[in-house]
Amino acid sequence: MEKMVLRERLIEFLMEDLGMGDVTTEAIVPVDAVVSAHIIAKEPMVVAGLYEVSIIFEAIGVNFKARVKDGERVNAGTVLVEVYGRARDILSAERTVLNILMRMSGIATRTRRLVDILRRAGFNARIAATRKTAPGLRLLDKRAVVVGGGDSHRFRLDDAVLIKDNHVRIAGDVKEAVRRARSAMSFSKKIEVEVQSLEEALEAAECGVDILMLDNMSVEEAKHTIKALKDRGLRGKVVIEVSGRIDEKNILEYAELEPDVISVGALTHSVRAADISLEVVEVSERRLS
Amino acid sequence: MEKMVLRERLIEFLMEDLGMGDVTTEAIVPVDAVVSAHIIAKEPMVVAGLYEVSIIFEAIGVNFKARVKDGERVNAGTVLVEVYGRARDILSAERTVLNILMRMSGIATRTRRLVDILRRAGFNARIAATRKTAPGLRLLDKRAVVVGGGDSHRFRLDDAVLIKDNHVRIAGDVKEAVRRARSAMSFSKKIEVEVQSLEEALEAAECGVDILMLDNMSVEEAKHTIKALKDRGLRGKVVIEVSGRIDEKNILEYAELEPDVISVGALTHSVRAADISLEVVEVSERRLS
Amino acid sequence: MEKMVLRERLIEFLMEDLGMGDVTTEAIVPVDAVVSAHIIAKEPMVVAGLYEVSIIFEAIGVNFKARVKDGERVNAGTVLVEVYGRARDILSAERTVLNILMRMSGIATRTRRLVDILRRAGFNARIAATRKTAPGLRLLDKRAVVVGGGDSHRFRLDDAVLIKDNHVRIAGDVKEAVRRARSAMSFSKKIEVEVQSLEEALEAAECGVDILMLDNMSVEEAKHTIKALKDRGLRGKVVIEVSGRIDEKNILEYAELEPDVISVGALTHSVRAADISLEVVEVSERRLS
Amino acid sequence: MEKMVLRERLIEFLMEDLGMGDVTTEAIVPVDAVVSAHIIAKEPMVVAGLYEVSIIFEAIGVNFKARVKDGERVNAGTVLVEVYGRARDILSAERTVLNILMRMSGIATRTRRLVDILRRAGFNARIAATRKTAPGLRLLDKRAVVVGGGDSHRFRLDDAVLIKDNHVRIAGDVKEAVRRARSAMSFSKKIEVEVQSLEEALEAAECGVDILMLDNMSVEEAKHTIKALKDRGLRGKVVIEVSGRIDEKNILEYAELEPDVISVGALTHSVRAADISLEVVEVSERRLS
Amino acid sequence: MEKMVLRERLIEFLMEDLGMGDVTTEAIVPVDAVVSAHIIAKEPMVVAGLYEVSIIFEAIGVNFKARVKDGERVNAGTVLVEVYGRARDILSAERTVLNILMRMSGIATRTRRLVDILRRAGFNARIAATRKTAPGLRLLDKRAVVVGGGDSHRFRLDDAVLIKDNHVRIAGDVKEAVRRARSAMSFSKKIEVEVQSLEEALEAAECGVDILMLDNMSVEEAKHTIKALKDRGLRGKVVIEVSGRIDEKNILEYAELEPDVISVGALTHSVRAADISLEVVEVSERRLS
Amino acid sequence: MEKMVLRERLIEFLMEDLGMGDVTTEAIVPVDAVVSAHIIAKEPMVVAGLYEVSIIFEAIGVNFKARVKDGERVNAGTVLVEVYGRARDILSAERTVLNILMRMSGIATRTRRLVDILRRAGFNARIAATRKTAPGLRLLDKRAVVVGGGDSHRFRLDDAVLIKDNHVRIAGDVKEAVRRARSAMSFSKKIEVEVQSLEEALEAAECGVDILMLDNMSVEEAKHTIKALKDRGLRGKVVIEVSGRIDEKNILEYAELEPDVISVGALTHSVRAADISLEVVEVSERRLS
Repeated sequence: MEKMVLRERLIEFLMEDLGMGDVTTEAIVPVDAVVSAHIIAKEPMVVAGLYEVSIIFEAIGVNFKARVKDGERVNAGTVLVEVYGRARDILSAERTVLNILMRMSGIATRTRRLVDILRRAGFNARIAATRKTAPGLRLLDKRAVVVGGGDSHRFRLDDAVLIKDNHVRIAGDVKEAVRRARSAMSFSKKIEVEVQSLEEALEAAECGVDILMLDNMSVEEAKHTIKALKDRGLRGKVVIEVSGRIDEKNILEYAELEPDVISVGALTHSVRAADISLEVVEVSERRLS
Repeated sequence: MEKMVLRERLIEFLMEDLGMGDVTTEAIVPVDAVVSAHIIAKEPMVVAGLYEVSIIFEAIGVNFKARVKDGERVNAGTVLVEVYGRARDILSAERTVLNILMRMSGIATRTRRLVDILRRAGFNARIAATRKTAPGLRLLDKRAVVVGGGDSHRFRLDDAVLIKDNHVRIAGDVKEAVRRARSAMSFSKKIEVEVQSLEEALEAAECGVDILMLDNMSVEEAKHTIKALKDRGLRGKVVIEVSGRIDEKNILEYAELEPDVISVGALTHSVRAADISLEVVEVSERRLS
Repeated sequence: MEKMVLRERLIEFLMEDLGMGDVTTEAIVPVDAVVSAHIIAKEPMVVAGLYEVSIIFEAIGVNFKARVKDGERVNAGTVLVEVYGRARDILSAERTVLNILMRMSGIATRTRRLVDILRRAGFNARIAATRKTAPGLRLLDKRAVVVGGGDSHRFRLDDAVLIKDNHVRIAGDVKEAVRRARSAMSFSKKIEVEVQSLEEALEAAECGVDILMLDNMSVEEAKHTIKALKDRGLRGKVVIEVSGRIDEKNILEYAELEPDVISVGALTHSVRAADISLEVVEVSERRLS
Repeated sequence: MEKMVLRERLIEFLMEDLGMGDVTTEAIVPVDAVVSAHIIAKEPMVVAGLYEVSIIFEAIGVNFKARVKDGERVNAGTVLVEVYGRARDILSAERTVLNILMRMSGIATRTRRLVDILRRAGFNARIAATRKTAPGLRLLDKRAVVVGGGDSHRFRLDDAVLIKDNHVRIAGDVKEAVRRARSAMSFSKKIEVEVQSLEEALEAAECGVDILMLDNMSVEEAKHTIKALKDRGLRGKVVIEVSGRIDEKNILEYAELEPDVISVGALTHSVRAADISLEVVEVSERRLS
Repeated sequence: MEKMVLRERLIEFLMEDLGMGDVTTEAIVPVDAVVSAHIIAKEPMVVAGLYEVSIIFEAIGVNFKARVKDGERVNAGTVLVEVYGRARDILSAERTVLNILMRMSGIATRTRRLVDILRRAGFNARIAATRKTAPGLRLLDKRAVVVGGGDSHRFRLDDAVLIKDNHVRIAGDVKEAVRRARSAMSFSKKIEVEVQSLEEALEAAECGVDILMLDNMSVEEAKHTIKALKDRGLRGKVVIEVSGRIDEKNILEYAELEPDVISVGALTHSVRAADISLEVVEVSERRLS
Repeated sequence: MEKMVLRERLIEFLMEDLGMGDVTTEAIVPVDAVVSAHIIAKEPMVVAGLYEVSIIFEAIGVNFKARVKDGERVNAGTVLVEVYGRARDILSAERTVLNILMRMSGIATRTRRLVDILRRAGFNARIAATRKTAPGLRLLDKRAVVVGGGDSHRFRLDDAVLIKDNHVRIAGDVKEAVRRARSAMSFSKKIEVEVQSLEEALEAAECGVDILMLDNMSVEEAKHTIKALKDRGLRGKVVIEVSGRIDEKNILEYAELEPDVISVGALTHSVRAADISLEVVEVSERRLS
């Protein structure tokens, strides 16, 4: 059933590129021409998007065979997928399919790189995405993070409470904001508070919130804040997330503070596409049965 | 009327983030609370997306005042926009609005950088986007390129003929592919051929195609190809586009060959988001009339 | 912005009833006829749906003035709303508007009745809805429960983990199911387990899940289970929800066990519509400006 | 082709519940797990919704076998449906499927009960639904009434003329309202008039309308009205519908007046869901071919 | 509220023509340029579509003033509409607006011509449309017929019963087909039978159907059939519709048989567009406030 | 993949006619009845729409076998298609299917007639459609023109530049309009200018535009204009399109001027439907497997 959530959206992507038809292919490629083609990684990567792409090919009647799995690490030159079907369908879908694979694999690859940095250094913190996804691509971007080994974090504004500085400002203080949230929200949702200072962190933790986000704190600030929480016996009662301009260079400094979660907006807002191409390997004019 | 093309899509983006509602904001922020806020560039950039964002704010009834224009170059710290309206609406739309601005400004900024490199060196080639856009974001990505000073290139598979290697392979040779395209296509569309070699380039140019794309040619190969076209008096009869892994480092080498167009897929497939934030500058509980 | 989530759906409801037009009204009522009308409670009720209905009237250009608020308890005969506008618009929207108000007020009224039974007896448990809503009406049904003083519980399958008997069966046991959920799920979501026996309840609580649902337990079973949790010091560490055929007659028996939440499927699956009608109070043929 | 009318709507219902995915099931149930399950009536009922549910299961690739038919009366414990397929698909669709079956069977069961009361007492009047359906569920609610043995009445505002008190008031009198309707409306539609008094009934019948609705008349009033129509030789020329707070208790009193149609809004506005559950009967990890 | 039924569809028509934007107008016409323009009838016609076009102009923020009314007969050269607004909006909407007006006015003009032929000759039969409308244009085509003075006939397959030859063939005979229809259909719908012979006509009329369609009968056949109905006292009990290749040339021959309705498929399946153009009358670069 | 562009739209057409269901067919035709039927040309025509209709029948599960091909010329009485399937599906889809075939074949037939007139007289000019298509039918109308042997011309406002009189007026002169278009537009699009006079034609041609449309010029004017272009050596550098009230009667006069393209708005704005019917050839009550 996951397929149904994705299918309609993926077909919209095809249609966005197709408009009233692939005029080049319709003019040049005979209706009955059949090809087999390979989708090939042109650089090392963690692959993501194969499932999505399989749905597209199925929808347009092209035979799809994945040679690797979503989440697998591959080298340059690896054939990811073999497809076989009407040449027109494969050529017309090519760009959309690659755009999806390249973005998702780019996201998964970077997520995995960060996870690996932590694991190799012996840390268990989760790498989490944020809501800084490309508009319309929330679902695909989050899936790519998960395929890469990351945590999706909130899907939307409705699936957990996250109290930010502006909320606190309007409510008056953290305590009042938490009180309002707790009173109005379903018991089925967690409450997270974004804090900018040690004081706010303590205030929030004392309110018994589920998650504390130390936002844009320097390593030093975060360190003091976590220590203060420990000193008051609050560390074990709250999940700690650090966030704000964390990347490959400084992630271990934050990891050493042993937060539960490190969230990285750039995972989805500044994606470097993985290099992937589709190559026709055989052309025939046999009819498909 | 451009607005109508954009509006529905932009509202979908809001809804994607909103789900059944911004539970945090609804719990904490009083219905009548009113705020003014600034959208601020946190680094130097060429701004894009202001028009799109103005449509969103208008749709949700928030007063919007742009202090700069799309395409303007700004410094870090510049207030791009002032908004004034219901606190709930502004806070709930914040993330979507920033995601749009950050991506579009990132694209425009990089496009402008490449254009500037060319212009400063005295070259007139156009910088063009490709169809390597994020799925669902074709329109916004192309607009951002244009705002940055680039050329949108094809919108979709239906608005010009672009004969690629696989088409040529299926047709037999370039000549036959062009013949088929010319016979089946409307006279209102241009015909472009992607060529991998000097021979193909000459063959295509002799067919009288409108545009030649020298694809993934090294600077040397492209140089020889363009020279051969000149030698045969074909250079002036065809638009030349060079394409394939061109970036800030090597663009001037290609520009020296004086192509008409340099297309750069990374403009839209590997976007580095511009850093932009929204800051509430005043909270009141006055009612909006 | 809540409005935008609702608006499109509400207009679909209007269109469902309208088809190609209200042929009766178009034939009989002059284009310029203007009326004022009252929407009137025909029995005592807790009103819900006024906000939704205000969006409909705004969308069709009818002046709307609520005399009471969503969540207010009113007597039979109370005028809930005054509307003023084109007679055609008011008459054509009448049935849809009343269908919404009658269902939502029916839900809110019953929710409030259950909440009142608890509060008058001195209990604090929340009354929660389930996902047993009318297809397509998840958002409206949940809103009506909240207006009535209840808790919305999960919106959808994606906003919290709820491990049911079939999940446990497939995983092998509760522990394994919780382990899998914890490993695969975002840290931002709560984990609830539905348990059928004292043993399962203890197993789940020991896994540290956030919420325990005692499902279809008799009062006796639930009592023993909660006692066992207390004896092991687990009661304070987990939210307890009781569920299964609880209604006005037996709710206090369950409430005496001091669960945190009592969920009631019938709130939304077996709604008795509140009796509400629309009455035209004045007809004029003045033009609207 | 009925299927196509229903399919899209039914999938929307699935998606409403699914959001970005059934996070519990995806975390716990292996992709390849296969189950068979039974959908079971937990109380006596007239079943409705099997056709709708078969479309859902087909859409998600789950094997569906109905053991009874829509419209059949079953006892508690009856297995209505056997399904076999991917465990994930069955568990994720469970709630939506049951919500549909429970509502539709609830409607059909009550419709049948009223029909049976009439038939056993020897009356032939039709039991008809009204437009008081749940918003968005017009089609399903009407289908359930028909499955239960009732008459769907108007589908929408466009498929027959129904002149109500407000129309009469605006037109001036019944005669003028009928005249306007007849002049503006297609000859292909019937004209029904809702009347509150004997006088209006005679006026309408003399205009030659197709259907008279005696609205909210007491049994006595309705009796006098029908007698007056008979006395004037008008009874045979018009279909008579009685309407307004008719239920199991008073239906026979109205039936004795021998109306052609008895319409009952509560059939669809105050539905008591039939109790139905889905039980997994076997789990395997065999792959589906 | 009629507006809401139309609005979404009309905007789709705009978008169909606009694609990613009116590239010509955006390139050439300054954002702030303002024009006034006239929509002018280039030949005599009965105007239809003004209401639809007013909705489009309102949707895109262009000031619209109709100088004539839908259904009015105008001469060549008549200014139908004045518009004033952003030049870009007016130019980009021009083609879609004219396409709507030209088709609808073409339909209304021909409908009126046929009605006039009848009325001038002293006949009262209604001129009715069929379901032979352009795909997707059912609503607009039917509206144009009504504006022209015709009868819309059925909107869709669901708003009246129309038993055709294939239905009769499958049922066995007319009587059985009518029996099935009467038993399964709501009392709120009329039953029409399409008959090919005098015998079928009598059989259907004796079943008490509401409408008889004499389909593809020659004038002679229709004459005998109607006479036979009169002879048996059935004429007054049934509405008679004649249908099948009736046009300006032979309509009076059929009209002399005094049918109630004459239906003409060509009204909507073979439309001659009325000639209408849009002319800019003044260009300014004043800003719109 | 062309299929996907069409399929959703075609199903909307079915639904437009179906509403809540084909009440006649559902009442009369048994669920299991199976029929075979023929779709038959009732007059000579060039067939178009078979592909579209095959998609509809496939979508509703009816077996479809075309006996002729789109673009084939057939005589009256030719069986175009055999279908076999559930009687209900075939009867319910009949009208929509015929409406599509009749319109598209009407367009193709007239296009072919004009092409034939040219070819028989030895001219090579293309016959092109315009954007004067029925609202919502751009894709189908253009396809029918192409099937008939014509040129689709622009699909939408975004796929080529076409500078009209109003654009020129706002820009000041042709030169400035072309300059603006060239500067703002992608190099991938052609630029066409609509000219009303010899002077404008020369001005445009001298700007190097791709296409000149001689709009509403008399044969004499067009002749002088083309001669002037030749005299200045411009004829070979620009595609010439003539347009404006060209039909069967005067087309050869324009053809003698040897334009490249003759465009005819009436091809799609004033369609005479081809006469096509569906006839059931055999009824059985065998079940479909």
